[in-house]
Amino acid sequence: METELKEMLSDLDNLQQSLSDPSYQASLAKMRSHVENLTSLVNSGQGRRSKVKDMSAEVVDSNPYSRLMALQRMGIVDNYERIRDFSVAIVGIGGVGSVAAEMLTRCGIGRLLLYDYDKVELANMNRLFFRPEQCGMTKTDAAVQTLSDINPDVVLESYTLNITTVQGFETFMASLTNKTHSLSKDGTGVDLVLSCVDNYEARMVVNQACNELNQTWMESGVSEDAVSGHIQLLIPGETACFACAPPLVVASGVDERTLKREGVCAASLPTTMGVVAGLLVQNTLKYLLKFGQVSPYLGYNALKDYFPTMQMKPNPQCSNAACLERQEEYNLTKPARDAAAKAKMDAEALIVTESAMHLDNEWNICVVDDEEQDKKDAHTHDVLPEGLVHELPSADEFQKPTAQEESFNSADDLEELKRQLEALNAD
Amino acid sequence: METELKEMLSDLDNLQQSLSDPSYQASLAKMRSHVENLTSLVNSGQGRRSKVKDMSAEVVDSNPYSRLMALQRMGIVDNYERIRDFSVAIVGIGGVGSVAAEMLTRCGIGRLLLYDYDKVELANMNRLFFRPEQCGMTKTDAAVQTLSDINPDVVLESYTLNITTVQGFETFMASLTNKTHSLSKDGTGVDLVLSCVDNYEARMVVNQACNELNQTWMESGVSEDAVSGHIQLLIPGETACFACAPPLVVASGVDERTLKREGVCAASLPTTMGVVAGLLVQNTLKYLLKFGQVSPYLGYNALKDYFPTMQMKPNPQCSNAACLERQEEYNLTKPARDAAAKAKMDAEALIVTESAMHLDNEWNICVVDDEEQDKKDAHTHDVLPEGLVHELPSADEFQKPTAQEESFNSADDLEELKRQLEALNAD
Repeated sequence: METELKEMLSDLDNLQQSLSDPSYQASLAKMRSHVENLTSLVNSGQGRRSKVKDMSAEVVDSNPYSRLMALQRMGIVDNYERIRDFSVAIVGIGGVGSVAAEMLTRCGIGRLLLYDYDKVELANMNRLFFRPEQCGMTKTDAAVQTLSDINPDVVLESYTLNITTVQGFETFMASLTNKTHSLSKDGTGVDLVLSCVDNYEARMVVNQACNELNQTWMESGVSEDAVSGHIQLLIPGETACFACAPPLVVASGVDERTLKREGVCAASLPTTMGVVAGLLVQNTLKYLLKFGQVSPYLGYNALKDYFPTMQMKPNPQCSNAACLERQEEYNLTKPARDAAAKAKMDAEALIVTESAMHLDNEWNICVVDDEEQDKKDAHTHDVLPEGLVHELPSADEFQKPTAQEESFNSADDLEELKRQLEALNAD
Repeated sequence: METELKEMLSDLDNLQQSLSDPSYQASLAKMRSHVENLTSLVNSGQGRRSKVKDMSAEVVDSNPYSRLMALQRMGIVDNYERIRDFSVAIVGIGGVGSVAAEMLTRCGIGRLLLYDYDKVELANMNRLFFRPEQCGMTKTDAAVQTLSDINPDVVLESYTLNITTVQGFETFMASLTNKTHSLSKDGTGVDLVLSCVDNYEARMVVNQACNELNQTWMESGVSEDAVSGHIQLLIPGETACFACAPPLVVASGVDERTLKREGVCAASLPTTMGVVAGLLVQNTLKYLLKFGQVSPYLGYNALKDYFPTMQMKPNPQCSNAACLERQEEYNLTKPARDAAAKAKMDAEALIVTESAMHLDNEWNICVVDDEEQDKKDAHTHDVLPEGLVHELPSADEFQKPTAQEESFNSADDLEELKRQLEALNAD
């Protein structure tokens, strides 16, 4: 459109120079103003907003972050604006990944890395996000187009590649470890990887990359009949990796690719995929901004509105070498973690006593219900003396298993793992 | 844009007529072709697809319904294409309503009626659906623009009005009872009403309308701290209406409007609203297309990923007169319903015996697990002899309480209701 409009302006220039009659000049000036109006409409990106320097909590209609910053005033999140420091990689920009990307973009995430090799088709229109006019574009290009219009504050990196190829895997690894945007020196260049792919092979590749890089990630999936799904948190060495408990179809030696027959496609629904994307990004926000409890595994059975949960410990016989390395590292740091957990519990006991004494409470009656205790657990770094926080950084992490949980012997673990494996594949 | 382009064409016409010199004619012809190109770009709706006559199950990239029709092949839905016969009204096109509308549109719903009086603001950009360039448009206009681009097969009716005003309520009632698009003579002109409003007053108006019209509806809501939500099915006379169990804040005599202070806004998240919209539309699909179990009430606690469910029976002391009328009607038809339920159970027992005898099973061993029995319950009309289906239409409905459940006395009911009321307000 821009090209057509530029050419018309130059045509008008030529005509205006060659036609001296004032009656023509008026007509040409009118046309020029039409072309200029159209140009400004097109260039405005149809109303694209400019970037915002700081997230404001001001309650005005023009503030895109007012309802998010309100999470602080409501006591849910300590520092919402921290979200701008985080980088999240989303692998697979389909029915779940695209919606997850839109949610994170609207939440004002700092940086999104998007990976997909596929193109948008009309057959994708039964799920949210992509629009019919984007058919034929790569999913990554279409996503960048839409997301940058929605929130120009988010840094978007798009990788149009297949991570299951050698070349694709190399670029994938290099992009995850690029620390240009990273504030901390530890870890990779991203804070979380979200797997939103639709096949076992690609999941195993994400698993391999995250095990090698010691990168925490979340897995998501939707069944072929479109009426169930799940999300799962994977922390290398600490939780089961994707190879620790493979799906039954793979465990029994069937190649998934031979299961897909020509002309047969999986069913899908925008509802199931929207729910799974919502649960995935909600847990991403809880993980990054440290509020609530991050679910280790959460299933969604749409027919019965049933949401199974479970925890999966790593398999000491896992076939993935990098997983075994991470398990060993995790076990080596166990005494330090136990000590930190104990110190944290002691410190909390102290706070409960102290705060009870400082309450504006004539009779010194103090009721601490479960929910309040949970909140205290999540926000301990608010109340702890400053020095204590810096001495116990790892105790501030979420979902540490208790010493008792870890004292299972490995035979029990395998029995448990088998049961969980069956449960995982049942839905 | 269209106006600017039309005026330019007429300017060109005038110039072409008055300028006879061939050198100018060439230049004008070039400009005309530019204007024509721009017009076709604008008119094409940037690649809008044409309407589809029948939903096809063909597995090709260009078929927008292939993944939905696959629900039939997977055995989830008997006849997916029936979705085109249904009309759904959505009241409130905000963070939940707009996403619900998009999901239903992408599912190919027959007709959507959209109600809202508000305008799109940048402050809405932290939720899905609306785009920054739509700021200043009414939410109904913006929704129609987006939804008609996504799926031109859906009939969209938009009502830019406030249902809590006298005039607004009249138009609301008239639109719900307009039977122009309705296939059946029974009931209103819509199959389901979804309430996606954000305040008590508007919910009570939807409740009033649906009680008066004997219209089944679903209520949805998200808490002010953005981390919990719920959906609820309301069948006049059969389940509690919204006035049967009012929220505690209203029951205690506090006017909700005085609670909203100047400069203080509720928090909101695209995740929570996306999950609630997904659960709402999933249950809408289950209700309309008769598969799975429709949840009478489903809560979502995002901090703990906890999903409480419950059932609420009508309050015989409900303050809403229309609710009491519907309760009376429902009680009058109880003997007929009980008989139909019994006949259905007997028929099913017969089928189990018959199918067991016809199994390709040498030893006549028959294992019916819970899940299979549930499937049978949901799809009984597949297996029943044809005549039997037509004699028992009402038994084909979902979620009928058993005779035992209904035999509670009303004192128990009130105790139960109080407990449920407290649970409802706790999240």
